Parts: sequence; C-alpha cells; structure tokens
Amino acid sequence: MARLLVMYKTPQDGSAFDWYYSEKHVPLAKRIPGLRKYEISRGAVGSPAGTSGYHLVAILHFDDVAAIQAGISSPEGQAAVGDLQNFATGGADIFTFESRDA
Amino acid sequence: MARLLVMYKTPQDGSAFDWYYSEKHVPLAKRIPGLRKYEISRGAVGSPAGTSGYHLVAILHFDDVAAIQAGISSPEGQAAVGDLQNFATGGADIFTFESRDA
Repeated sequence: MARLLVMYKTPQDGSAFDWYYSEKHVPLAKRIPGLRKYEISRGAVGSPAGTSGYHLVAILHFDDVAAIQAGISSPEGQAAVGDLQNFATGGADIFTFESRDA
Repeated sequence: MARLLVMYKTPQDGSAFDWYYSEKHVPLAKRIPGLRKYEISRGAVGSPAGTSGYHLVAILHFDDVAAIQAGISSPEGQAAVGDLQNFATGGADIFTFESRDA
C-alpha cells in the first residue's frame, strides 16, 4: 500500500477554501484512477506548539507508489493537480511513500 | 477517527535511525493507550521535487483527538515522546487532526 499526503498551508480565505475543496476538488480527486481511499482532516490541524500552519491534510490511499504516479499522470490526475491553483492559495506540501503496518 | 502524523526529518545516520526505530521505538509506541493502528512509510518519502527532506512518516490512528491527547499524556505516551531524543537526530514535525472519509 502507499499514501499520497497533501498538506494544505493556511489559505488566504479559509471558508472559501473549505467550500471549494468539498464542492469542487474532492469530486475531481475522487476520479483519479487507482485511488482506494481518501481521508481528509476535519477541523483544525494541530501541532505540539498549537497552530500548525496547515489548514487541511488529505491522505489518499493507493496500492503502491507506481499506482500513485500513474494516477497523477492520468488526465483525471492532471485535472486534480491543475485544480490546486483554484483554491490552494497558501500552497501545499505533497509527499508520497509506500507504507505498511508497524 | 483521528490521526497523529509524525514526520521525521532526515537524520544524521539513516541506518542507525532505522534500526532504533524498528527495534526500540515501535515497541514503545505500540504501548500507547488508545492506539488503534500504526502505519509507517517504507523506503523513500518522495515529493514532486524529488527528495522530500523527510526520512520516515508514521500515521498513528486513534478514535479522536481527545484519545490522542490522553494517549500522549499517559506514562506510555510520555515514554515514547521521550524516546525521540534517542534517534530523531534530524527532528520531527508532529500534527494531530480529526479525520473522515472524503
């Protein structure tokens, strides 16, 4: 199994982000081929220091990193990536990795 | 459901980190009360730019953020937190959030 971790930094307008993310981006991202499960944070993203600087964390599950790469390279993946500029006004940190149970 | 995300930055000695993490830290962290599932990255943590600056990502699952806080505050949680200084020589970024399926 593998994970695509997308960490959205605090945007200019949190309410506008939230609306766009749930109404527009999630439906686009759900169409990425190979996506097995799609988790998102709800409410504040905390850190030991208090605020984290991140507004939302998404964890997308795929079978392996090759499936992530194929999914992102697909037309549906490219549409989801291209959509980031429409709402991710604070930017986003993106990570990919194979994962296993500890 | 809620997630405790621990992102370990590249340590001074990757092999020493890996040995300590699997042999010493995982058994300690598994004793944290309320922990439901414990995922860790395997191999490189990538990013669109290539290398990510992170060596390992752990995703610990709990029922809710209150359970994370109670778990971390417990003696077992404090032992796991205190253990970080024994191997996390690059530091670690830690985040907590409630999560749901998108």
